[in-house]
Amino acid sequence: MNDVKNELNSEDEIDTSSQPQADVSQVVHLLTEAEGDEQAEMFSEILTEAEPGTIALLLESLPLDERYERWQQVDVGERVDVLNLMRADPRLGIVKKMPDEELDLLFSQLSPEDLIEWSDSLPDNITDRALAQMGERQRKHFELYDQYSENEIGRYADHQMLALSLTSTVAQGQRFFRRIDLDCNDHLFLVDSNDKYLGTVRRYDVFKTADLDTQLQVLKWEDSRVISADSSLIEAAEAIEHSRELELPVVDEDGILIGRMTLRTATALVREHYEAQLMATAGMDEHDDLFAPIVVGAKRRAVWLGINLLTAFLASATIGLFENVLSQVVALAVLMPIVASMGGIAGSQSLTLMIRGMAMGQISAGNVMSLMKNELGIGALNGMLWSVVIGIIAGWWFNDTIMGIVIGCAILINMAVAAIAGVMVPMILQRFNQDAALSGSVILTTVTDVVGFFTFLGLATILYL
Amino acid sequence: MNDVKNELNSEDEIDTSSQPQADVSQVVHLLTEAEGDEQAEMFSEILTEAEPGTIALLLESLPLDERYERWQQVDVGERVDVLNLMRADPRLGIVKKMPDEELDLLFSQLSPEDLIEWSDSLPDNITDRALAQMGERQRKHFELYDQYSENEIGRYADHQMLALSLTSTVAQGQRFFRRIDLDCNDHLFLVDSNDKYLGTVRRYDVFKTADLDTQLQVLKWEDSRVISADSSLIEAAEAIEHSRELELPVVDEDGILIGRMTLRTATALVREHYEAQLMATAGMDEHDDLFAPIVVGAKRRAVWLGINLLTAFLASATIGLFENVLSQVVALAVLMPIVASMGGIAGSQSLTLMIRGMAMGQISAGNVMSLMKNELGIGALNGMLWSVVIGIIAGWWFNDTIMGIVIGCAILINMAVAAIAGVMVPMILQRFNQDAALSGSVILTTVTDVVGFFTFLGLATILYL
Repeated sequence: MNDVKNELNSEDEIDTSSQPQADVSQVVHLLTEAEGDEQAEMFSEILTEAEPGTIALLLESLPLDERYERWQQVDVGERVDVLNLMRADPRLGIVKKMPDEELDLLFSQLSPEDLIEWSDSLPDNITDRALAQMGERQRKHFELYDQYSENEIGRYADHQMLALSLTSTVAQGQRFFRRIDLDCNDHLFLVDSNDKYLGTVRRYDVFKTADLDTQLQVLKWEDSRVISADSSLIEAAEAIEHSRELELPVVDEDGILIGRMTLRTATALVREHYEAQLMATAGMDEHDDLFAPIVVGAKRRAVWLGINLLTAFLASATIGLFENVLSQVVALAVLMPIVASMGGIAGSQSLTLMIRGMAMGQISAGNVMSLMKNELGIGALNGMLWSVVIGIIAGWWFNDTIMGIVIGCAILINMAVAAIAGVMVPMILQRFNQDAALSGSVILTTVTDVVGFFTFLGLATILYL
Repeated sequence: MNDVKNELNSEDEIDTSSQPQADVSQVVHLLTEAEGDEQAEMFSEILTEAEPGTIALLLESLPLDERYERWQQVDVGERVDVLNLMRADPRLGIVKKMPDEELDLLFSQLSPEDLIEWSDSLPDNITDRALAQMGERQRKHFELYDQYSENEIGRYADHQMLALSLTSTVAQGQRFFRRIDLDCNDHLFLVDSNDKYLGTVRRYDVFKTADLDTQLQVLKWEDSRVISADSSLIEAAEAIEHSRELELPVVDEDGILIGRMTLRTATALVREHYEAQLMATAGMDEHDDLFAPIVVGAKRRAVWLGINLLTAFLASATIGLFENVLSQVVALAVLMPIVASMGGIAGSQSLTLMIRGMAMGQISAGNVMSLMKNELGIGALNGMLWSVVIGIIAGWWFNDTIMGIVIGCAILINMAVAAIAGVMVPMILQRFNQDAALSGSVILTTVTDVVGFFTFLGLATILYL
């Protein structure tokens, strides 16, 4: 490893000149409005100017049939870059449609790093087909990265980096930095003959040193941070963000340097992490295609609807306990949704604050009781305010003071319970290693629905019957 | 401007050695579990090792009284850095508590760039107090940046950068790169005597050139991109992400170079953007404090609860139209929540997909009809599946075939409407420049509630009465 990795690949990246880029959404607008030949012509113009990332975004914004037609216009040399920058589902859709000979050509240009990322979503037989196109050495690399799971940074570390031995000179270091133009390249990693990581030298120090014969180990930067290969993706991303570096070494359990993590990769991981959280709130996946084939899309969403149905039946069963009072006081049925809805909103406010805090590692057993007190205080204040407002409106609407008292009490109780549940549900889910962004709101709404209906109709039973 | 900006500040950043950092959440755990003197001791140990970003996260995770006690331990020289990295609300809370003399000392260390960011949330009298601590030149800079609004990148551009004249030599360029160690510094900007931006030279090219007398204009990089100072924050962040650069020049309407945008700033902006979206789904703000004072927190959330209450009354009023049938068939009241809930979930799935696509600029008038067709297809498939399932269960539960038919039809209609509303609501909000992440789900739920109750109870009225 005492040499530059994949030198050819990195040379490709040197000349990335490009026109000032129009806003993506404007291009999407023009392209999606056009049809047939007009669209094809417009797209071939875009292809000459746009970055692969923009082309990927554009293709994703096209319906499936148009998308594949436009895909065929993409230059063979640029196809790997574009697919790398697409989400997993749309990428898979294109790969599955491509004829075998085109696919083999594509795979022959794929690096082991690319294939690792693709393989997370590719069917095994297609991954095997891609591996068959690779040389022995590349296959070995693939197997090396494949040891790490989909949530370990060792799997996705960047393997293009500058590494030299301790006794190399400043002159050699300068030559490396001059010859190789890597993205986010600010460090030179020092290793022994077994690739064991020994330290970092900064580019700035290499060029500042006048005596070209100085050994690099003299410039070794004390206390430079290291990312462990089994760190989670978001931990690794945050390590870079919290540091002031552009790159950090990724090291396995034996201290062997296996790659580097860059600020650009961190940015992509942070974006993916938040996209995943956003999509999870609706039981969906960050890889989902904007234009999924209808049956595939329906199947995926059906699971989430089914889970929701179970909780909805729980709420219904709670109401079912009170058929007696409902049949006598119809106004209760009219007002029921208000109690549930106010509790649900109040709870989701606490839950959202918790999810944001957890994403940054700011919540723990030590401050959860203080948080609970705070949320309960906020919930009680708002509970008192809104129980009075709603009580008065309901009492006036149905000309019935008891109704005002019943709904006021139910709102107050439900909003207090919502604050407690908003704090406790994500804590309990975290304890069991479940994603609070995914299942938190379903569980929370179930709690506020059941408690809301139970207190409201229960109080009504006591006061009316 | 033909010189390095704030050279002293940038020199400070050279030596940022630090211990390998423990995971933030572990430190939060230990710190929040400790109390009083034990906590104070632990925190002073942390202060010697941790980065300002970590200290900011830790302070935010403490309740207000403990937070201010620990804050007083933070070294005077590090206070500006820590406050810079805190969210606006917790920062404001600390600033408001500080005695006047400490505040003046703090403000005397503040750069105009810092103050610009703080001033977005500081009360005017405190901003004026800070300005009074600044020199004439710094005040002028503040006024320059203050011309741009809170959503324009000109306001937050990084003003530390390397700029030289066209006729400067490679030797001068190399000296600049050697002398100044800026974060994300890969470019040298060429300007005329009026600071008009004329082009970019890459660090790589400067060090590759052997003849030190070559003028920098010879190395000028054609077609390098430029960010306009009135671009929105997220547009500017995406321009960097989509490029392969670490920094891009920010230029005003007259072509004057006013600063640069770096990949690190972009990462922070992306994180803030997504945090804002996540918080907006519950009607909250990314600046909100985990431990807001109870009255402040209650007041902010009350607005959102009030808006929700209006929509809940709309749903209630819809139910109120059907008191007659409800008083005769109580089972309707029991099953009502299921119809509303299935529509709400299906709609939120379409809405979430739309919000993600809009964030990336992938949705426009040109593809919205195709999207609608796709979502409607998915909604219809799931609608048929679940209307049969729910119809059978409901029919069996109440031993009433008509009830099964009524709820089945209502679910099918509501899920189709949910798909249409999930696509159209965010499109309409975008047309009126409203944030779909903020108000989308409230409007959508109102639609699915009202339509759900109306079709369910309306059908029941026709079939039972």
